[in-house]
Formats: sequence, structure tokens, C-alpha cells
Amino acid sequence: MLATVIHGERDIRVETVPDSRLIAPTDAVVRVVAACVCGSDLWPYRGVTPVTAPRRIGHEFVGVVEAVGADVAAVAPGDFVIAPFYWCDNSCLNCRGGVSTSCLHGGWWGAPDREGHLVDGAQGEFVRVPLADGTLVKTPGAPDDALVPSLLTLADVMGTGHHAAVSAGVTAGSTVAVVGDGAVGLCAVLAARRLGATRVVAMSRHTDRQAIAREFGATEVVAERGDAGVEAIKELFDGIGPDFVLECVGTKESMDQAIRSTRPGGMVGYVGVPNGGAELPIRTLFSSNVGVNGGVAPVRGYIEELLPEVLSGSLDPGRVFDLELPLGDAAEAYAAMDERRATKVLLRP
Amino acid sequence: MLATVIHGERDIRVETVPDSRLIAPTDAVVRVVAACVCGSDLWPYRGVTPVTAPRRIGHEFVGVVEAVGADVAAVAPGDFVIAPFYWCDNSCLNCRGGVSTSCLHGGWWGAPDREGHLVDGAQGEFVRVPLADGTLVKTPGAPDDALVPSLLTLADVMGTGHHAAVSAGVTAGSTVAVVGDGAVGLCAVLAARRLGATRVVAMSRHTDRQAIAREFGATEVVAERGDAGVEAIKELFDGIGPDFVLECVGTKESMDQAIRSTRPGGMVGYVGVPNGGAELPIRTLFSSNVGVNGGVAPVRGYIEELLPEVLSGSLDPGRVFDLELPLGDAAEAYAAMDERRATKVLLRP
Repeated sequence: MLATVIHGERDIRVETVPDSRLIAPTDAVVRVVAACVCGSDLWPYRGVTPVTAPRRIGHEFVGVVEAVGADVAAVAPGDFVIAPFYWCDNSCLNCRGGVSTSCLHGGWWGAPDREGHLVDGAQGEFVRVPLADGTLVKTPGAPDDALVPSLLTLADVMGTGHHAAVSAGVTAGSTVAVVGDGAVGLCAVLAARRLGATRVVAMSRHTDRQAIAREFGATEVVAERGDAGVEAIKELFDGIGPDFVLECVGTKESMDQAIRSTRPGGMVGYVGVPNGGAELPIRTLFSSNVGVNGGVAPVRGYIEELLPEVLSGSLDPGRVFDLELPLGDAAEAYAAMDERRATKVLLRP
Repeated sequence: MLATVIHGERDIRVETVPDSRLIAPTDAVVRVVAACVCGSDLWPYRGVTPVTAPRRIGHEFVGVVEAVGADVAAVAPGDFVIAPFYWCDNSCLNCRGGVSTSCLHGGWWGAPDREGHLVDGAQGEFVRVPLADGTLVKTPGAPDDALVPSLLTLADVMGTGHHAAVSAGVTAGSTVAVVGDGAVGLCAVLAARRLGATRVVAMSRHTDRQAIAREFGATEVVAERGDAGVEAIKELFDGIGPDFVLECVGTKESMDQAIRSTRPGGMVGYVGVPNGGAELPIRTLFSSNVGVNGGVAPVRGYIEELLPEVLSGSLDPGRVFDLELPLGDAAEAYAAMDERRATKVLLRP
């Protein structure tokens, strides 16, 4: 079978790899219908995080179950399924506590499982899914192909944007600013509006992304950054700032932007994977009573919550995909995102 | 009149100072019935924060209104009043947003006001109260003298412990650990139980403070610290930790203890004034979805919420005072707290 392998900085190849197969009785094998490239995949691509040896890559996919192990009961061959960007049992203490990303028995795509067997990356023709009963969520029947992009966002970016909003505590009638105009930031705009925020400011310098943000319900756009960005955001909210700021980038600058833009007593919801050496400035947080909540998004638990709205068409996050390519063009998919020619690229095996 | 002045490290003197008097029409002058020494007063006392010139000290008091300016309407001479540990208008955007410690027009006891006039410290015979209508909360009638200690805790430590619990989001049926066994930590135990936590672990190595913690509703006590403390706390909660940890100290070690003890997806509520250079470890927080919320406690807003229970006797935080001295013995009050001979000392002018 074919799958994407990263060999080093800006070196993405689609290669023949060993076929996915059932190893544990709790495994399933899924034929990938659609996968995609994540902003966080660009870190090894750009050499920000080093690639020491060729490895499988990708962590977002939807597909059709091809085979299941003897202990799998919740899904069966032929089911259309969504996988979160990690695998989990969905039943341990942490999963039940709403934090399936801290599953006591789970792990990550493209990395060895707890028995040392490599778990496939998602950018390939097939994926072996450990703990399939916990990991996979099946749709009722085979969805229309037009819904595939939106369903695929439930694997990561829509659930992650939603987590930023949930972690901040966005409520009906509240005010929000979103730092980051990548797919996650755009989904955070959508999520904040869905949770009832009356004003949502998208911080974006790119007209194409500003347009998607407005489609997703952003009421205002701020193009400034840094001190000017803080000033512009505060100005929009009586000089003190919005109730909540959603940080969807992961750099020191973006977190600083978020913390300084939030009104005293407000909350930063953050989902940007921390990149670089900066810690959180406790004195600034303390003196202003700005809280920080979030982390690696437990999207497994959000799939069931968001799925009905995606299926009915009332929630359409698939709009973040502005380029679709065959799996064989994965290298071009990375390049397009790296060069900001695309917000997010969907890959079809 | 007499008031306490700190001259330098371990140099506390009660001296004759200029009489408190009305300056602005929004001022009141209050005759202090009881004041006290705060754990944070020990920082300049111990030389941790330098004292560059003699200055007034103390920020917690209850008393009787002696005089009011022409624009004061909410309190009148003869009223028994509680003051929060800062002064505020209780009406600006931030006050209305629940963060009166970020009042757009307020300030701190013992520091110059916005016109440059020194505002009195609380450890004295009288205090000039700026923005008296916003700052002061009067009791219905003159309270029984036995209630004075508990009323005095509403100026700071009870409201601050409550803020730790509120910031963490303590709910009925939840589990909590409290880092810090000073007056604030003990009040945080009381606050967590009051909000319905079913298990509250007090982290304390001092048998006298452990006893107060148990009186305040602590269900368990852990004496270990550091790695052993984290281990002991996690062990008590299925190996993953409690839902909420309340940080009531302000050191790198105590915050580290709090963050590492919280279950994935849980929240640290913190009110310990940050002391030392440590920032918050974002990668640890991100990977475990542990949030951090809190800050300098907006106790003004909590006084009215907690006052009825103090007046009825159902809430008795005054138990944190284990030594009472006349104002003239302020130096001994500081020494007793510094040497841990007392948890918190009440001063009577």
C-alpha cells in the first residue's frame, strides 16, 4: 500500500509501505477515504522539529472499516468512521473525565503502540486502528461525499477549535477574539459563534482567511499584531478587552497577544501546540485575573456532539479546505500549506 | 493617632502619624475596630521585598465610620463596616465584570492615591477610605464582638480562599486538594467544602494547622511535599489526582506542587501572590489539559455573598486567628507569624 513518509526538512514522499493488518484483537483496519495535512505537520516539514529518521506522518482521516479484530464490537466492515487525531479506549478514568488525549491506554498515529508495533500515519491508503471500539465513531449510514470535508474536520481542527472555546468557557452573549487564522483558528470562530458569542473578532492579515472567518460568523476582523493588535482589540471592547481570547497558534507571540488582549477576569482558551521556549507570565496573569485553560484537544468526545450538526448541514467547517489533491501529490500539499497558497489541503488516496 | 510603620527588615514600629482626615468628597474616615497581619506583610518584614523608606502597612480592617465626605451616600457615621484589602468604586466596567481588584479608579492601602495623597495602612487607629461608597460594606446593625474575627476575614483571607475555589470552578461533588496551610489555605478548605466538594485534602506539615483544616472540613491531610506530595495526592484519587487544586502560597514549589497534583483536565485555582521568578510551564499544562485560573482576589464582591453566613454563625472563618494583641504590640504580632508561633494575628487598636 501507499503512504506518506517524511524523510527530512521539506522532503515528503509517498512510498510503498507494509500493508496495514490486524495485530491485536481490538484493532480495526480502515480504508482511508480522506486524510489531510495539519499545521502541526509543517513543523517537522520546516525543520522546526528535527526528523532524525524517515517516519510515517498524518493524524487526520475518515474512511471505511475494512476488517476488525475478534474483540471489536462497536464497528464492523463497511462502516464509515471518523477517527480522532489519536487513539484511545474512550473508557478509562481520563477518557471518562473528558480528557481522552490523556487516555491511560491510548497513543498517537505514526508512533509505536505500547507493544512496540508501529501505528500507521493517517496520510496513507489504509490505517491500523488500535482500540477501535474506543477510537472510532461511525456515521449512521454512508454519508454523501460532499460531507466528507466537514466530517474530516471532526478528526482534529473543528474539535480543536471547539476545545479552545469550551476551555475558555465561551457562553451565550459573551465576547471573543481569536488569535490565529489557520484552520483551527477559523474553526474556533465557528465554535465560539455556535456557543452563542455575540461578537467574535478574527485576528488575520490574509484576505482569503478573513473571508472564511466572516463566513464562519466573525463580526469583526483585526489585522494588527503585537502592541497595535492588543490596542485594536481592547479598543473594540470598551478599552478593556473581550471576555475570552482563543489562542490557536502556539508561539510566544500569539500567547502574549492572547493574554494581553483579554479583559481582566477573562480567560484564554488555548490549543496551539506550544512551540519555542516561552512559559506563561504568571505576574501578568495574577494581577489581571486572566486564566489560561486548554491543551491538546480531546476531540474524540466532541465528535458525537458535533456530528449531527455536520450531517444536517447546519455546521459546515469543511470550508477550511481550499485545496484537494490525490494522495500521490502529498508533497505538493505540504508545499502549498507551507507557502500559504492553501489554508488546509485534503488528500484523497 | 497611632499606626504601624515598617522601617526595614524585621523593623516594625507603632508610631504617631498624621490624623486621618477627609480629603475627597467621596472619602470616609473609619475608626479601626480590628486589623491584622497578612502572610504577604511578611515579605517586606523578612526582606524578601525591600523596604526602601519607612512606610505604612496593613490592608485588612473592620471598623466604625467616623466621618464621611459630602458625596458619600451608602455609609454614614456609626455604621460598622468591612473594607476589602484594596479600595474601588465597585461600579466601573471591571468591578461590574467581577474584577474589582482591577478597578479603573481604585488602589491600595498604604500607597498614594491617584491625586498623590497617601492612603493610610490598615494597622492603625483610623483609616481614610477613598471611594467609600464602593469600598465599604456595612453590616446590618452593630455586630456582636465575638463575630469580629470572622468579619475581619472577609477583608482578605476568607474572600481570597473563596476566590481560589471559585477560580478553579469547584462544584458540588468534586474533589479538591489545597496547597498551603496559612490562613488563606485554611479558608480555601472551608470555601471548597462550602461549594460542595465532597473530598478536600489539606497539604500541611503542622499539627495545629492540620487541626484547623479538619475543623474547616478537610477530609484528609497529606504532610508530604514535592515528588512525594504529588505521589501521595495522586494515590488518594485513583492515581490521577483530584479535579481541582487550590494554590495558596505563591512560590515556584507550591505552584509546581499544584499543577503536578491536578488530574488531567482539571484546574488549578491560585491566589498565592507570585514570589520568585518562575513562570508557568506551558508544555506540562498543554499535555495534561490542566488549566490555571485566579489572581489577586476581588474580595469586595464576595463580602456581600459571604456576610449573611458569617452573621448567622454558619460560616466561622475567624478560627484562623489564633493570637490577638493590642495594636501597640504589632512588632510581636509580626514576629509571632514570622516564627510560625501564630497562624494569623488580630490587632486591636
